[in-house]
Amino acid sequence: MTPLALTLGDPAGIGPELALAAWARRAAQGAHSALRPFFLVADPDFVERSASRLGLHVPVAEIDPETAAEVFPRALPVVALPSGTTIAAEPGKPDPAHAGATLESITAAVGFVQAGRAAAVVTNPIAKYVLTQVGFAYPGHTEFLAALAVPPGSPAPLPVMMIWSQDLAVVPVTIHVPLRRVPELLTQDLVERTARIVARDLATRFGLAAPRLVLAGLNPHAGEAGTMGFEDRDVLAPAVERLRAEGIDIRGPLPADTLFHARARATYDAALAPTHDQALIPIKTIAFDDGVNVTLGLPFIRTSPDHGTAFDIAGQGIARPDSLIAALRLADRLARNAAPAKAPTAEIVPFNDYADRVRPASAPPSHFDPTDEL
Amino acid sequence: MTPLALTLGDPAGIGPELALAAWARRAAQGAHSALRPFFLVADPDFVERSASRLGLHVPVAEIDPETAAEVFPRALPVVALPSGTTIAAEPGKPDPAHAGATLESITAAVGFVQAGRAAAVVTNPIAKYVLTQVGFAYPGHTEFLAALAVPPGSPAPLPVMMIWSQDLAVVPVTIHVPLRRVPELLTQDLVERTARIVARDLATRFGLAAPRLVLAGLNPHAGEAGTMGFEDRDVLAPAVERLRAEGIDIRGPLPADTLFHARARATYDAALAPTHDQALIPIKTIAFDDGVNVTLGLPFIRTSPDHGTAFDIAGQGIARPDSLIAALRLADRLARNAAPAKAPTAEIVPFNDYADRVRPASAPPSHFDPTDEL
Repeated sequence: MTPLALTLGDPAGIGPELALAAWARRAAQGAHSALRPFFLVADPDFVERSASRLGLHVPVAEIDPETAAEVFPRALPVVALPSGTTIAAEPGKPDPAHAGATLESITAAVGFVQAGRAAAVVTNPIAKYVLTQVGFAYPGHTEFLAALAVPPGSPAPLPVMMIWSQDLAVVPVTIHVPLRRVPELLTQDLVERTARIVARDLATRFGLAAPRLVLAGLNPHAGEAGTMGFEDRDVLAPAVERLRAEGIDIRGPLPADTLFHARARATYDAALAPTHDQALIPIKTIAFDDGVNVTLGLPFIRTSPDHGTAFDIAGQGIARPDSLIAALRLADRLARNAAPAKAPTAEIVPFNDYADRVRPASAPPSHFDPTDEL
Repeated sequence: MTPLALTLGDPAGIGPELALAAWARRAAQGAHSALRPFFLVADPDFVERSASRLGLHVPVAEIDPETAAEVFPRALPVVALPSGTTIAAEPGKPDPAHAGATLESITAAVGFVQAGRAAAVVTNPIAKYVLTQVGFAYPGHTEFLAALAVPPGSPAPLPVMMIWSQDLAVVPVTIHVPLRRVPELLTQDLVERTARIVARDLATRFGLAAPRLVLAGLNPHAGEAGTMGFEDRDVLAPAVERLRAEGIDIRGPLPADTLFHARARATYDAALAPTHDQALIPIKTIAFDDGVNVTLGLPFIRTSPDHGTAFDIAGQGIARPDSLIAALRLADRLARNAAPAKAPTAEIVPFNDYADRVRPASAPPSHFDPTDEL
């Protein structure tokens, strides 16, 4: 089975210990839910020292991606950084000296998945302010991955951030921007492009035959017909109308506050919301430990735990690997759906127990069209 | 026991049937949790017809407030509108013809509580657009109540909306305004005035000896030290600093998305948030059916179910009275704390199981100072 490529993240953060902890739980819940083999892209000696420091009995094996699955049952497979860079990071002490290794791990992991040597990229958390000190110029992790998805100099695809859990999947249409800029950034075009990517990837990657989307309003009560802000009526409603005309099952704009309780959640597969907090508040309220950040719109699968580097607790062995494990599991499922069907009966893995809505096995596999979202 | 005064709300909405349903459950859960007696301020004949139409065997008794508690075990007490106005509303058919009765019910209920004839006001939902057709000029229900709290022509106190449930209490600092106006409306002064009222009312009305507040940030991740919007650093942080200097236990601004999961909720008694949705999303996600809207900052107690008129289902008998019942229960508890202590051992009712943080019985009762918040 093609393994997953796990990036190092910031080596002074909790990424290394989470990788060790996730491996230690590789079969904890029995064969049925055993983790798909993964390998860490890092300096193997650094990983070994991290294990010793934490008192973890985790053997580390330096391997190539092709050997990862074979080694995985008995050791944490680590693929060395192509440059051979070594890492001497101390937990909790971020240092731009390690920024190169952090970035190279990401680049190498993407290279492995592009070459078919890995099934998906799972990323450990980075700290942008550490990377910017060595010239990192991307708005964030996700935009860097989008740039790596195309040849250098080509326009990158629009990456769409979804936070996914068993109970709820949310997509913020605007993300890391000041709130006062949201009304100008929230264009009809952005809403439409985002919704198209979500609908497509829910079908092709998540195996949903007919994904149901909802769009939260920007203003309180979705603007109450324009009496409390005009954007819901003038920007979001026309976007929904056009998307529906294209055959996408989307409703909205709906009042954001009544969209996330259990009965409401049962009516859709993913909720798009105009602002970061409208999307992130509900999922972190109900799935704080096991939300997964999944990037849609890229030509490869990328998931990530839904937390940061946590420098304040790094090296103490108390960080919870739940979200990383959830990210590894989700990457596995998405990779199984995305793989070209070997036979008409190839299994499609349903989500959220919507077994009756699973994409027919005869549906074509997803292929990325670089002209689609540019 | 002084009864609670329940307003009619829009007579074409679900208010009348919720009042009937709440009375029908008055003792459903045993004497220990029996509802405090309440009376509805309405046209008794209309209430009786509503019961018949719904097939409910609820006797209706026209009484004065002083007789409500005596009658309550055997009939729903209804105090007629002072003007004697009759109501001929049809469920689901809002009509400005009934706006006068809706408003008179509110005015009368406030009058009863101001005269000591009722212990608190519990309001059924109104539809503002129906009332505006007869000249209602207030931004909403709450502002109308604030105006009624003072002599005509006097400046009204700042009413503060809290949505309360057993698991979470939230306060939106701005409420029913377009999102794009929030950055300008969210002044340091507004944050401070709001927090002072919340801290005071949690102590005097909710019986918390040392209320712990948190303030959510306006921008994603609370602005990350000014790199993602400046308001958190320049407006909210100074407000928190000043409030702390005054002795108020408040932390923030904190990232809104990580503030509402169970472990985070255990660290505070109420969360203030800059926008409507930041506050309302988490509480409606986890307590959709039993959230209570409670107005702080008024010289009397006012609670309300946390839902609207629901004209679309009115008269069908399917509306859930859970939120109204929760509002009646909360009004009862707040009224018991607010009542002048009859003896040094007068019971103070703790909230959220913070039994060790209960206000000492010797603490002075709360009195409204009209110069405080003007």
